[in-house]
Amino acid sequence: MRLVVIGGVAAGLSAAGRARRCDASLEITVLEKGEAIAWGACGLPYYVQGLLETVDQLVVYTPEYFRRERRIDVRTGANVVSICHPRRQVVLASGERIPYDRLVVATGARPKRINGACEPGVFTLATLEDAEKLRCFLIERKPKRAAVIGAGYMGLQAAETLRTHGASVTIFEAEHEILGRRDPALTDALRRHLERFHIDLQLGVRVESVEPGMVAGRPCDIVILAAGVQPNVEIAAEAGIELGRTGAIRVSDRMETNLSGIYAAGDCVETTHLVTGRPVYMPLGTTANKTGRVAGANAAGRRERFPGVAGTMIVRVCGLGVGITGLSEWQARKEGLDPVSASIESFDKPRYFFGERVWVSLVADRRSGRLVGGTVLGSQATAGSINVIATAVTNRMRVEDLEHLDLAYSPPYAQVWDPILIAARQLSKNF
Amino acid sequence: MRLVVIGGVAAGLSAAGRARRCDASLEITVLEKGEAIAWGACGLPYYVQGLLETVDQLVVYTPEYFRRERRIDVRTGANVVSICHPRRQVVLASGERIPYDRLVVATGARPKRINGACEPGVFTLATLEDAEKLRCFLIERKPKRAAVIGAGYMGLQAAETLRTHGASVTIFEAEHEILGRRDPALTDALRRHLERFHIDLQLGVRVESVEPGMVAGRPCDIVILAAGVQPNVEIAAEAGIELGRTGAIRVSDRMETNLSGIYAAGDCVETTHLVTGRPVYMPLGTTANKTGRVAGANAAGRRERFPGVAGTMIVRVCGLGVGITGLSEWQARKEGLDPVSASIESFDKPRYFFGERVWVSLVADRRSGRLVGGTVLGSQATAGSINVIATAVTNRMRVEDLEHLDLAYSPPYAQVWDPILIAARQLSKNF
Repeated sequence: MRLVVIGGVAAGLSAAGRARRCDASLEITVLEKGEAIAWGACGLPYYVQGLLETVDQLVVYTPEYFRRERRIDVRTGANVVSICHPRRQVVLASGERIPYDRLVVATGARPKRINGACEPGVFTLATLEDAEKLRCFLIERKPKRAAVIGAGYMGLQAAETLRTHGASVTIFEAEHEILGRRDPALTDALRRHLERFHIDLQLGVRVESVEPGMVAGRPCDIVILAAGVQPNVEIAAEAGIELGRTGAIRVSDRMETNLSGIYAAGDCVETTHLVTGRPVYMPLGTTANKTGRVAGANAAGRRERFPGVAGTMIVRVCGLGVGITGLSEWQARKEGLDPVSASIESFDKPRYFFGERVWVSLVADRRSGRLVGGTVLGSQATAGSINVIATAVTNRMRVEDLEHLDLAYSPPYAQVWDPILIAARQLSKNF
Repeated sequence: MRLVVIGGVAAGLSAAGRARRCDASLEITVLEKGEAIAWGACGLPYYVQGLLETVDQLVVYTPEYFRRERRIDVRTGANVVSICHPRRQVVLASGERIPYDRLVVATGARPKRINGACEPGVFTLATLEDAEKLRCFLIERKPKRAAVIGAGYMGLQAAETLRTHGASVTIFEAEHEILGRRDPALTDALRRHLERFHIDLQLGVRVESVEPGMVAGRPCDIVILAAGVQPNVEIAAEAGIELGRTGAIRVSDRMETNLSGIYAAGDCVETTHLVTGRPVYMPLGTTANKTGRVAGANAAGRRERFPGVAGTMIVRVCGLGVGITGLSEWQARKEGLDPVSASIESFDKPRYFFGERVWVSLVADRRSGRLVGGTVLGSQATAGSINVIATAVTNRMRVEDLEHLDLAYSPPYAQVWDPILIAARQLSKNF
């Protein structure tokens, strides 16, 4: 049986690798449009910041590795232009047709573009090539005034990255909020933090186009476009693969599309939100790897399911950890819940272990008494804290049980009252 | 109504403070045998290590604070020698009788002692006074050869503390294991780590008594007794308060004893293990605070319950974080489960963010498919990881769901595959 995978980054290679482990006899071909495979897109800002010497250090595997160790034929520069499902063939730009029995579509996503996106001095940060060009420009031109378009996690990372190169930064965001949460407290806290680093946050400013040297009437020497991504679904849609309401490919929990034998995974699919049960488009590296594995297993004949996402993410913004999971209060209300929330400030460790300030916000549903979301701002410990909240949200934990959660304590690591427990106590009172 | 609390540290003061918030009209008296109240016992090793200048820095509140801010009468040097429940009175060593309507027993625990425990150069580390004496001895005498009796978390902290003062250390442990888990892999990993710091671990050596300058035939200049603690239950038992099979006070999930109107909390009570449903004696500061709050609320007429503990703890051992929660494989088997386990090694972050090695071990029950315990060894991130596992264990999470848990990823904080997810995948395979 022949398995073809379109896309050789996170989801595609996870699918191919997992399919191989499930079935040693499969013929597996991975078709990657670009020249590199298996690169860590999330590391791009840190390459530009100078933490990595060469961009190749973000490349985890080579096609040779897959050929030799996994007997998977990985072809780079293989640009798929169409899928002919009646004939079970994919067609390359070169005209070559590659037959399949099972197909995994892992075509990823691309940055949303606006007019002027191709002007010199205007960058996106989605590929290895993007990162090299941007770093080069920053080192050679030393831009003084920078504009970032979009205040999602990519925009915030871009702002940090520009600051490490000494530019003053203005972030323009069309909405009146940060990170898509409609959480005024979070937006205020982040605005204050950004101001300390001379980053100006302009909310409610929709940038429709950029001209050389000018964004929204402000002069600038460099622009980074970070106004979100859109799924690469054109080839799939033309082949008759159904899209969901989010605009991404609709899949079952086995990652199967409406066309029998065609699976999809990664940044081109929508997933199920574990709190709302509804489809959601949240393209992230972790989910790409997980959905890729599940697609690969099912394509190879196993029965596995991907339950969905809690909407967990973390981003470092000028040294501050910002973690979110589940629903914000506004999102919960929009979903028909009756949200009750609490926010507290505390410290992650005792003062004598250099404890740093941490800010925890929790949201529960008044009717069911269950936790539906949370936000953490703070130090390195932010990752662990948002993960605990994500685990509690995934398990629909009741606030009264969360309050008594048996979390670890020792002075080098924690406070006797973990900030999550303090927030849970406050949340209980607010019911 | 008069509420009397015996004990003015974690559980006692949590009970008193919570009772006050629940009922503004209560007359509340706290009787503390010692001179200080509200001190953080878990910080003692770090005072001895020199991270705090004075031991008073571990004292969080003064009696004056409670009198002024909470209208709670806190009496130090008030040594309760008996409880006369028929008359609803506690009797002090001075002969004074103090009447109560409701009583909270929070008498704590004390280190187990052996013959020779009072010899010079032999220390325990349970009180502020202990800590001052030990630090003084270490600074003035500069002992070269140290012995620690017990390889529980206190023994491991003591060994680290002695190393910071330059002594070579031998730990003697009666059992063939560390931290009471009967986990050979954990014991081996810790032994290797301790060896790097010139700490010798002698397992299966029961030390019945110490003589000056000699432990188990080995010469030494200082001994720290850390062979566990026992609950202070004598006064309670004499008053007719029932003890459980663990030897600690038996309480309901409302923290009520068998005597009506008498509650107990903290290191003198047994609690329910959330995985086994059985009583367990696990005296820890976090649990003391939580059970104290619940005892105080119920004593003040509210109805609150304490669900129990997952058995979560963390200890720093010469810089290595060691976190445990739930059951080890051996414990699971002893409880009649059919354990299946997996251990993996990974890194907490990418190499370019100075990722450190992390070791995760998970235990599940084959029949139910549910996670029952775990161990994490590693860097600062250990705390967050063991807390995620504790939250999953508390929620009886299925391994197949754990595998897809939506944990946060960004290179400054994590790997795209969190070590917990890698361990969960391995655990799935081992079923």
